Formats: sequence, C-alpha cells, structure tokens
Amino acid sequence: MLARDLPPDRLLTDPGTITAHTTDRSGTRPDGEPLAVVRARRTEDVIVTLRHAHELGVPVVPRGSGTGLSGGAAAGEGSLVLDLSGMDRILELSADDQLAVVEPGVITAELDRAAGEHGLRYAPDPASAAWSTIGGNIATNAGGLRCAKYGVTRDSVLGLEAVLADGTVVRTGRRTVKGVTGYDLTALLTGSEGTLAVITSATLRLRPVPVATATLAAYFDTFEAAAEASYAITRAGVEPALAELVDGPVLQAVDPALRERGAALLVVQCDGAGAASEAAAVARLLEPLATTVERTGDPARAEALLAARRLALPSLERLGRPLIEDIAVPRSRLAEAVREIRAISARHGVPVFTIAHAADGNLHPIIVVDPALGGLPDAVWEAAGEIFALALRLGGTLTGEHGVGVLKRQWVAEELGPAAHAVQRRIKEALDPRGILNPGKAL
Amino acid sequence: MLARDLPPDRLLTDPGTITAHTTDRSGTRPDGEPLAVVRARRTEDVIVTLRHAHELGVPVVPRGSGTGLSGGAAAGEGSLVLDLSGMDRILELSADDQLAVVEPGVITAELDRAAGEHGLRYAPDPASAAWSTIGGNIATNAGGLRCAKYGVTRDSVLGLEAVLADGTVVRTGRRTVKGVTGYDLTALLTGSEGTLAVITSATLRLRPVPVATATLAAYFDTFEAAAEASYAITRAGVEPALAELVDGPVLQAVDPALRERGAALLVVQCDGAGAASEAAAVARLLEPLATTVERTGDPARAEALLAARRLALPSLERLGRPLIEDIAVPRSRLAEAVREIRAISARHGVPVFTIAHAADGNLHPIIVVDPALGGLPDAVWEAAGEIFALALRLGGTLTGEHGVGVLKRQWVAEELGPAAHAVQRRIKEALDPRGILNPGKAL
Ligand SMILES: Cc1cc2nc3c(=O)[nH]c(=O)nc-3n(C[C@H](O)[C@H](O)[C@H](O)COP(=O)(O)OP(=O)(O)OC[C@H]3O[C@@H](n4cnc5c(N)ncnc54)[C@H](O)[C@@H]3O)c2cc1C
Ligand SMILES: Cc1cc2nc3c(=O)[nH]c(=O)nc-3n(C[C@H](O)[C@H](O)[C@H](O)COP(=O)(O)OP(=O)(O)OC[C@H]3O[C@@H](n4cnc5c(N)ncnc54)[C@H](O)[C@@H]3O)c2cc1C
Repeated sequence: MLARDLPPDRLLTDPGTITAHTTDRSGTRPDGEPLAVVRARRTEDVIVTLRHAHELGVPVVPRGSGTGLSGGAAAGEGSLVLDLSGMDRILELSADDQLAVVEPGVITAELDRAAGEHGLRYAPDPASAAWSTIGGNIATNAGGLRCAKYGVTRDSVLGLEAVLADGTVVRTGRRTVKGVTGYDLTALLTGSEGTLAVITSATLRLRPVPVATATLAAYFDTFEAAAEASYAITRAGVEPALAELVDGPVLQAVDPALRERGAALLVVQCDGAGAASEAAAVARLLEPLATTVERTGDPARAEALLAARRLALPSLERLGRPLIEDIAVPRSRLAEAVREIRAISARHGVPVFTIAHAADGNLHPIIVVDPALGGLPDAVWEAAGEIFALALRLGGTLTGEHGVGVLKRQWVAEELGPAAHAVQRRIKEALDPRGILNPGKAL
Repeated sequence: MLARDLPPDRLLTDPGTITAHTTDRSGTRPDGEPLAVVRARRTEDVIVTLRHAHELGVPVVPRGSGTGLSGGAAAGEGSLVLDLSGMDRILELSADDQLAVVEPGVITAELDRAAGEHGLRYAPDPASAAWSTIGGNIATNAGGLRCAKYGVTRDSVLGLEAVLADGTVVRTGRRTVKGVTGYDLTALLTGSEGTLAVITSATLRLRPVPVATATLAAYFDTFEAAAEASYAITRAGVEPALAELVDGPVLQAVDPALRERGAALLVVQCDGAGAASEAAAVARLLEPLATTVERTGDPARAEALLAARRLALPSLERLGRPLIEDIAVPRSRLAEAVREIRAISARHGVPVFTIAHAADGNLHPIIVVDPALGGLPDAVWEAAGEIFALALRLGGTLTGEHGVGVLKRQWVAEELGPAAHAVQRRIKEALDPRGILNPGKAL
C-alpha cells in the first residue's frame, strides 16, 4: 500500500487539497477528481509512488506550481497527482562552472535570484517566473522574454535526474557545456509534459549577468506597423535580448492612458558590451516607423517600460477568463499573422487581445471569455481553430512555448504528420509501456 | 532486387569504390568489406535502399564525407554503405527567415558561403568544414570553433526530414525559432550517428554575420598557465566567440618558430557590437598572465593568428597517424585536466599533443602513432583509457563533439550508467527493431 510505504505527511486525500490540485491556470476541468495527492519531498517518494502506480496501472499527473496554460497538470477521475513543488532545494550553485543543480520544485525566479548573488543569472524568464517551478519549465520547455537571445529552457538544461514510469532512476546529460555520448535524452525529456518521466533534479546552465542593458519603447499607429518594425530589427541583423509587442486592446486593458499613446507598443532590450550601440541601431530603424521612441539605460525606467507587457495577463483576467493561444510563425510572417488574427476576430465577433515575443515570431492571441457563460461558446472554439490553422498555413506551430496539454491535442496530429506522430507514440510506449504517466496529454 | 529498383548509376560494387568507402578519418579498419555502395541522389533512393535492407536484414552504414574521427562511418563485412554526399543541393535559402533547407550532402563551408551572400552565416564551423557534410555534422552533433558562443550543431537545426529503418519518411521540427509540439525528435536524431534514421534534408538556422570582430593571440610559459588564463575569461563573465588553446608540442609540429615564442598559445575572438570592448577586457585579463599579447581587428591578421590552430591536425599527420581524443570537462577543471594528461603521457611514454576549444572545456589530446608499427601499441590503449577515465573523474564526458562511433564504445556504458543506457537501447529498438542502421556504433 502506498500510504504505508511513504513517510506520514506525503499522501493527502482531504477534499480541499484534492480540489486545489485538479487544474492549472488554463482552468481546464477534467471529469471527476483525482484519488489523492502525493506531496513528494525527495526522489525516494517519487520512486515509491511510481512503483505502486505502475503495478496498479494508476494514472499519475506530475505537477509543479500549476501555472500551466494548456491543461498539462489537469488531473481527472482516478488519477494520482504527484506534486513536486515541495522538492525545492538548490542543491549546488557553482559560480566556477556557471551551473546549478536544483530540485524540480525550485521557483524559477528564486534560482535566478540565487545566481545573481554570484553575478550570474538563469536566462529563461517566463512571465510566470515568480510562481512557476523549474520542473514545470523543463517539462513544458518554457520560453520567456529573454529567449530571443538566450534560447528556451532546453538551451539551459545540461542534464537531468528523472524517474521512469516503473520507478527506475535515470541520469541524463552532463556538467559540461558540450557532450555527445549517447542519444540526447535530456532534450527528449525537456518539453515532454510529464508523459515520459518525472524530473527529480536538473543541472542547469547559468550565464553571466550582462555588463550593460539598454531598453527602447516605441508606439505605433497600427499593430501591423509595430510587427513590421520588429521584423526590420531581425532583418537588419540585430539580435536583441528581448522584443515584446503589445496591441491596442491590451494597452487599453492595462491602462487607457497607454492606449492614448498609440495603437501598439514595441519594447526592445539590447544587452552585453554592445548594448548601447545596438540600441542606437534599433532606434534608427524604429524612428521612421514609430510615432514615438523612448530610450533608456536606467534599469528602473526599463522595468516601467516593460510594465505594460508584464501587466497584460493580470489586466485581462479582470475582464474575464483569458484563453491564451501560443502560436509561432516564421518571423517574416509576423505582420501577416497579426492581420489575419484581426480578420478572424472580426469574422466570429470574438474579441482577441494579442501580445507577442516578436523576435521569435511567437504570438499570444488571447480570447477573453465571459465567465458568466459557464463554458466556451462555439464562436470561441471556431476562432481558436482558425488561429491554429493560420499558424500551420504560415509554416508555423500550434505552440511556441506553453505546450500541448489537453487543450491543443486535437490539432497535434495535423502539425506532426502521421509518421512523426507514430514515432512519438513508439517512444512513449518504449518508456512508459503501461501508459501511466500523464495519459491523455501532449500526444 | 535493389539494383532493379534504383536508377542505373546508384549502386556501385567495383572494388575501388568499395575500398574507398570502408573507413573514415579515424582509420578504423573493420573486418571484411561492405557488399556495395549506394550513391543516393534523392530521398527516393534512400527509401528504396532502406526498404530492401530492412526486408533482408542487411546492415546499412550512412556516410557523408567520411571525415569522422571515431569510426562512425566504418563499414564492415556484409554491409551496405549509403553514401549521401551526392545529395548536395541547397533547396532554399531564406534571408527573410534566416534559414536554409539543404540536402544532407551539402558541404558545411559551402552553406556558410552561400549564406554569406545574404549577410548571414551558418554558425557551426568544425575545423573540417571544407570537407564535412551537413548530414555528417548533424549525425555527430558536430562542434567547432564558434560554438563557444553560438552553440553546437543541434542549436542550429530547426527541423529534419529523415528516413526510418523501414523506409518511412518522417519530418521533425519546424521553420520557426521556437516550438514545443510533441517530443523533440530533431534533437533525438541530432547526434545519433546514423543509428536511428538517415537524414535526407535539414532546415537550418542562419545568423547575421557579426558587425565587428576582434582577435587576440597570447603566448604563455606553460600550457597550464594558458588554460588558467582561458578560464579567467569565462570567470570574468566575458563570452568570446572562440577561445582556442594550442600546446607547445603542437606549436613545434606546426612551425618551430612558433614554439620559440612560448610553450602554449591561446587565440581568442570576440564578435558583435561589443567586440572591441570585450577584446579590451580580455587583453586586461591576459596581460598579467601571458608573455605576449597581440590584438587585431583586421580579418587577414586574425586568420594568420588562427593558422597555428587550423594547421595543427595536418601538421601532426606528417608525424604519424594521429589518434584524436575529444574529452570535455567542466571549465574550471581545464588546467587540472591539462596537468593530468601530461602525467599520463609521461607515465606511459606516449607523446600526447593537445589542442582545446577552451571556452567549452573541450580538449583534443592527440596521440600520434608510428604507422610503421601497424596496429596500436598497448601503451597507447592504456593512455587513451586513462584519459577517458580522467574525463569522467573530473565530471566530464568521453566525447565533446566527435561522437562515440566504434572507438569509444567500450567506455559508453560507464558514462551513461545502466539505466540511461537501457533507455537508449529501448529507443533504438522502437525506431529500428531489426537493428539494421549502423549496428555496432554509438551505443
Ligand atoms: C501569468 C502567466 C504567465 C506565463 N508566461 C509564460 C511565458 O512567458 N512562457 C512560457 O513558456 N509559459 C508561460 N506561462 C505558462 C506556465 O507558467 C509555464 O508553462 C510553466 O513552465 C509551468 O510551470 P509549473 O511549475 O506551473 O508547471 P505545471 O503547470 O504544474 O505543469 C506543467 C506541465 O509540466 C508537467 N510537470 C510539472 N513538473 C514536472 C516534473 N517535475 N516532472 C515531469 N513533469 C512535470 C505537468 O505534468 C504539466 O504537464 C505563463 C503562465 C502564467 C499564469
Ligand atoms: C581535419 C579535421 C578536423 C575536424 N574538426 C572537427 C571539429 O572541429 N569539430 C567536430 O565536431 N568534428 C571535427 N572533425 C570530425 C568530423 O569532421 C565531423 O565528425 C563531421 O561532422 C563528420 O562529417 P562527415 O560528412 O565527414 O560524416 P562521416 O564521417 O561520413 O559520418 C559521420 C557519422 O555520421 C553518420 N552520417 C553521415 N551522414 C549521415 C546522414 N545523412 N544521415 C544519418 N547519418 C549520417 C555516419 O554514419 C557516421 O556515424 C574533424 C575531422 C577532421 C578530419
């Protein structure tokens, strides 16, 4: 019996705890409720839990902070939630080797803060960094603002410790920046949304804090013009550390005074030894296209310029339930995507708010649904479906960083094609033959 | 019959062709000779070849240019060599999206040159770039000089077309810089050394040519001092585009006049808008440690400074058969590794020449064997074995970029550990159940 093999405080079955662990920030409500929640404190708890679940064929839903936006941590009838948020120790932080070894429940921003004490940082910075866990970030291969220059979570993961469905512990990767012994299991587990293994520790690359940073904020008459301008930066060969787009409706939701300044905002940050000269080059590109361009080297003012972007989601949540899409398109198609999304919105009478990680071509069109309606109206499903179809038609993808979860499953086969989809299923079967790890997600 | 299903010029069985395709630059000689060579010109040839081989259980050895250093393309008794070097078209080069779609036989430097016409470049630059193929680079996850800043081959691969053992075509990845739909099959195939699928096309990320480059060359009294100095750069938070170390014996082999200048050479390049100020910072770090430091912004002079590094291998080949090791260690352990390698060399009376991609902690200790000896003396095997053991003991890896091939197979299990090794085998079985793809390699 699981309860007997785990230390006393680990297995929770009280209704309050169970209800708090059934869904994530997508608000997806599966049928029924999980059996119990295991609050793991060490790898041994994960091993024991998986061994039992494997033997009995009980579905296990790994969970970090539950900030996911695609229902990846939603737990239905008869499942066991494996909560990793209590495994939250930074086991090692080596300034010498610019790496950290952490448990999966460490909060993203907390690692970045600890690295900062050594002049280093953890580059991936999802907008949820203050709440999300490293384990959740790895399981979703989270992106963030700085990944324009520093890559996504995968690019910062050197190695993992993970527990397979049957309770076997595997170690992947290494402590070196390079290495090619064996297949890249580290990359295979990164982004696998808890369906291949449970991550119990990660060796992460840290990077030096840049010596300088310069930030620009530009307002535009139209959202397309802002998208074109962001693409002009890429086209000119400048690689900013971040480039965030915010459309007019979002500005209006954050603060009507911002909306009065323009119909779209583009915030660009350059960093490193060349920050000032890169920012000057960006300013030269933006000035002919924008209505106003402001430039600053002051960190506090830079944060103020970024505030409109950071406040987007909380502001939209005041208007209703935000359904956050996450398509990515080749960067040259960004303005076209913006135009088409507007047309889809008009055609279905569904208001769409859009923010974008512009330098990556990663758009978040957000449909805000009136919670009084209970479910999702047909028009919302149709608009969402057309947005996915648009992404694929432009040579893009369904999900740039949030993952498939349950919400995007019906479109996955179309993006992957039957052969790649079949390969993925074979890999899933090879690693989790009984299918107990997060069934019904990702594939 | 394969000969009937392939166009007339594809299947070659003449002894000259066969002998030319039995080994790679490692000089590994397998027992016996392959049955035939298929010189593929299009994906259809690969499909037809694999379908037949799969049905008959014939081992297939994919091959690019054969510049590999670990015996990955060595083909033994009864095998079929699948030569991809004739599939050498650049199918698309999009300056707008900063990407290229290429066939696997495109020569690395040729792609870089074509990108250069658009102000772009293909970042990975193995020292073999003038001969190696993109397919071979992807199959080995090749590194290079610039990967200190721009990452290894994997970091430039957006998507692949590949043919599975049974002839099924799969497409992985995408044209966007970000995307998380499904498992990361692109990364799984990258570095799989031809054992999981045959790569028939690749979508590759291109990057802008940096606006400026600054190069430094510093000589030191000892190799350890040079290794310490390169680590001081990392430690100070500077991220150079390349940092190459050359030891005294290599300098002597390249040109005795260079050896007179010092016992070790460190060449560092900084690039981008901050190149000059980063190079100044590097110069300040090196000056107290080096005997001489030269700095230049002139590309021709920079190439001259790098020549000692680029000429290392050809120069050693004049002395005998070079056995090139490829260990990587955490960067803080670089000087320690250098010291231990010297001790191993002395203990076994085996001369070891060392060059290193210092910023990655990736060392190439090179044992030069007298070809008159025929095989490899025991002392050479023992020294090589101790170098691998050293890498693992320092928290490093057997192979930073050349791959396992056949030469490092006996040490793989130790690095991976039994659980990860078993997972790798399960993945191999899931994708190639009959084990026809490059058997006896990598795992
Ligand atoms: C305000 C807000 C802003 C956001 N901004 C971004 C953003 O900029 N970029 C971005 O990419 N995402 C963003 N997100 C989405 C979300 O924060 C990320 O997906 C995050 O990585 C999830 O982390 P979590 O710890 O909350 O994981 P959870 O939501 O608990 O789980 C996410 C997935 O990971 C799996 N999982 C969790 N831990 C483990 C583990 N240890 N082992 C195996 N599987 C595990 C779960 O089963 C699930 O499939 C945002 C969300 C919010 C609410
Ligand atoms: C002078 C010199 C310098 C070198 N410098 C470097 C360096 O700096 N960095 C570095 O990483 N390496 C270096 N190498 C090693 C070598 O060049 C690389 O490993 C290169 O990637 C091999 O490419 P290739 O086309 O010659 O492949 P091959 O040697 O033909 O094959 C290599 C492996 O890839 C597989 N393969 C080839 N094509 C395909 C395909 N289309 N699909 C599936 N599998 C395939 C083969 O089966 C084999 O396992 C150097 C070699 C030399 C001789």
